[in-house]
Amino acid sequence: MEPNPAYQDVLRVMRNTSDLQAAIALLGWDQETYMPPAAVATRAEQIATLSAMAHSILTSDSSQRLAEFFAQLLPALDGELSELEKRIVRVFVRQVRQAVALPEDFVRRKARVTTLAQERWKHARATSSFALFRDDLAALVELAREEAQHRGYTQHPYDALLDLYDPGMTVQTLSPLFERLSQATQEILDAVKTSGVAPDRSILTQHYPAQKQLEAARTIIEAMGFDFSAGRVDLSAHPFCTSFATADVRLTTRVNEHDLRSCLFGLIHEAGHGLYEQGMRAELDGTLAREGASMGIHESQSLFWENIIARSEEFWHWALPVLQAYFPSQLAGVTPKQMYRAINLVEPSLIRIEADEVTYNMHIILRYRIETQLLEGSMTVDEVPEQWNTLTRELLGIEVPDDARGCLQDIHWSFGGFGYFPSYTLGKLYAAMFRRALLEAIPEAPNLIRRGEFAPIRQWLKDSIHQWGRTREPAELVTSVTGGTLTERDFVEYAWEKVRRIYGSA
Amino acid sequence: MEPNPAYQDVLRVMRNTSDLQAAIALLGWDQETYMPPAAVATRAEQIATLSAMAHSILTSDSSQRLAEFFAQLLPALDGELSELEKRIVRVFVRQVRQAVALPEDFVRRKARVTTLAQERWKHARATSSFALFRDDLAALVELAREEAQHRGYTQHPYDALLDLYDPGMTVQTLSPLFERLSQATQEILDAVKTSGVAPDRSILTQHYPAQKQLEAARTIIEAMGFDFSAGRVDLSAHPFCTSFATADVRLTTRVNEHDLRSCLFGLIHEAGHGLYEQGMRAELDGTLAREGASMGIHESQSLFWENIIARSEEFWHWALPVLQAYFPSQLAGVTPKQMYRAINLVEPSLIRIEADEVTYNMHIILRYRIETQLLEGSMTVDEVPEQWNTLTRELLGIEVPDDARGCLQDIHWSFGGFGYFPSYTLGKLYAAMFRRALLEAIPEAPNLIRRGEFAPIRQWLKDSIHQWGRTREPAELVTSVTGGTLTERDFVEYAWEKVRRIYGSA
Repeated sequence: MEPNPAYQDVLRVMRNTSDLQAAIALLGWDQETYMPPAAVATRAEQIATLSAMAHSILTSDSSQRLAEFFAQLLPALDGELSELEKRIVRVFVRQVRQAVALPEDFVRRKARVTTLAQERWKHARATSSFALFRDDLAALVELAREEAQHRGYTQHPYDALLDLYDPGMTVQTLSPLFERLSQATQEILDAVKTSGVAPDRSILTQHYPAQKQLEAARTIIEAMGFDFSAGRVDLSAHPFCTSFATADVRLTTRVNEHDLRSCLFGLIHEAGHGLYEQGMRAELDGTLAREGASMGIHESQSLFWENIIARSEEFWHWALPVLQAYFPSQLAGVTPKQMYRAINLVEPSLIRIEADEVTYNMHIILRYRIETQLLEGSMTVDEVPEQWNTLTRELLGIEVPDDARGCLQDIHWSFGGFGYFPSYTLGKLYAAMFRRALLEAIPEAPNLIRRGEFAPIRQWLKDSIHQWGRTREPAELVTSVTGGTLTERDFVEYAWEKVRRIYGSA
Repeated sequence: MEPNPAYQDVLRVMRNTSDLQAAIALLGWDQETYMPPAAVATRAEQIATLSAMAHSILTSDSSQRLAEFFAQLLPALDGELSELEKRIVRVFVRQVRQAVALPEDFVRRKARVTTLAQERWKHARATSSFALFRDDLAALVELAREEAQHRGYTQHPYDALLDLYDPGMTVQTLSPLFERLSQATQEILDAVKTSGVAPDRSILTQHYPAQKQLEAARTIIEAMGFDFSAGRVDLSAHPFCTSFATADVRLTTRVNEHDLRSCLFGLIHEAGHGLYEQGMRAELDGTLAREGASMGIHESQSLFWENIIARSEEFWHWALPVLQAYFPSQLAGVTPKQMYRAINLVEPSLIRIEADEVTYNMHIILRYRIETQLLEGSMTVDEVPEQWNTLTRELLGIEVPDDARGCLQDIHWSFGGFGYFPSYTLGKLYAAMFRRALLEAIPEAPNLIRRGEFAPIRQWLKDSIHQWGRTREPAELVTSVTGGTLTERDFVEYAWEKVRRIYGSA
């Protein structure tokens, strides 16, 4: 094939944009890991400058002309572009349109409002004072509604925001699904409650020296297949995964010397993200398609390793001896079964980020209900705290003692991230669907896990999901891997299976 | 004063350029410290993209119009711009003109030639085979001559290159100065040789554990005043200092467990650079003036701390007990005098980067003679090895056994850095001039050093030199600090003083 000159132009624009994005990501990584504290203000300035440059490259007249040229002509270019190239172009078109959708004046206003809102949210949460944050929240909701208008939607304004995090996702799909999921979760929680079983998790909260925890966690993610020649691990206050190229994937973790879970499961989680980033095709480097298919799909990969694999009983047949080598006294005599029960406790709690695998979705459903109502205008900002508390009672059966542990607990609204929360639950549902597909493709997977032989599983994830980056949309990807469409059934089945093993035949 | 709108435009352009440069510097720092090895190729691509962006911002039509507007009108803007603002504008004009001076085609050719030349130089040095590098060197010299034509000069083509590293420096100034310096150095070396004294440096080459060396060096640079809240220290193969803001200055070091000097003096040297970067006025952040006045002036600051201060006998009255706390057995019974003698050995040697304070300049004078002759066309590339060996005999009195330890030892030519070497010696001369000025301004400085009270010295350097960044050219800066113009006399006097103390009354 002759190289298509317009496609070469697309590659050039994407190269410039993605190299800027890589630099922005490095500036961000450095800020969270090694940057000296006095540099906060100049670093923010640097990131803002480079972000504005990336935005202006994508929204330039020539980028827009290129995007619209391909939007119209792509079907006619069958002979000139390969399938992958066409998909890369589609990502480009989508990114340009997204960047163009918001008027400059709106972007500036949003930046101003969210900067102030984040500061005020911190104070509001620290003093548990919703009143302090109320006006900001009102402004943020108005901005979100305005953003939905700019971005456009056919049925529900929330769809315009959902689409940012999980392309193609809609309220029409999510609402009935979340209803069924909350119903099923309720049944599981009832079974747990009436079982009377209370697994012992005291083995997890002994003293585990930080350095040993880090070494053990590194050993485990190396066995998972995280490639340290193309990645690394550092410490940060909040764990994250970022990447500047397929060959440069950075994970961070934190360590709690009195809880074995924080570093270990945190790092396995981030390594799940990291394997996704390391598994993308080399051809995607320097394009805007070197990204996860969606937030939900990315989360499915971290949760696949953190929950499906590392919270399985099979995993601990292999992992327990590994950990015992680092913690011989703390873990003396512990069995895989004991560990499995200790790390899979199901218990309603107030704080989303501390919730277990099963109750976690209830936190998301609660936020989803509030966000959709705020967006459609059927709930006012003033009703949020009361609604939050009512929904917590309804979904989790517990009382919210104050707004700090209620509607002020999450940072997301303060940065204008409406539509973001559902990704977390989508990640859980996708992961459970992929688990079923894995068991069909590799029926011996549980035995492989039991022996710590993760290579075939990682390769299956790479072939099915990782390599494609953002060139397949979530729905297409899910169908190609599972043969079906998004459903909560696999997750519910998986959750019941675990709960039955741990809480008896309830 | 009303803000001048054209000045605001200058600030905007500089902000964009300098934020890109900060990101490029971070990409470079990361590459040398933490980047996983597999990322080399994509990192080079990212740096190239951002560098091209910075270049295209500076060479855009609007930047050129702004620069020429101010180049003509600056004297007329007395009422509208402060003195500092006018100086910042002058830096802008200079940077734009430098960026515009080279035609794009030339820049691309130079990039291609130097990339290949660096690879070939590595092989040539490894096999000590000048023939392997000969054609590259010929091409590099041709490029340097062409670059001099593009950049322009009035007397000697080498002036155009010197000006890049030390604005205003010329062959007319340097040649006689270097003649006098080599003459004086010769006399010092003769005195050392005939003294018959051979100080013992065996205390330096015992076993010094790496971690302790790092801790000791950090303690010492903290006492010098390096601000760890606005900077940090990491490990790298080759030590360097880089900065992304006045509040974010990064030093690197390496450790040799069998030589106390490598880490300690290396880090003191880099901290000297670092204090310069940390001492610049906050107003220079985000402008192109947040840089050293020149390579030579920057080097004067590192050498001021490494040599003038940390290789003085007074320094070791304070530093020896500090080090003895880290190395009680290795340094038991050692006196400041012994240490002073061990670290100030003068001895002709083959390799520039291993040379002592006194003989070092001979290595530079040798390279200066060869470079100027290559540039003016009075020496051919084929004559270089023989000339190198002859000059080594003449200046240092030793024989070059092979080209690896002769004309192939330095990387500089392979990246096209003709004109760079003199900065090293200029740094030594400036440092000695600043030493004399310090002793006039703060006569008790030696006693302060003896007590480890560096704050007044650091403050004097900041007030006199650091704060100005690139807003004062070297000659103006030197005159403002010393009252005189560039001379070798202070250095020669300083060197004689040391040599007399160590090698007797010779």
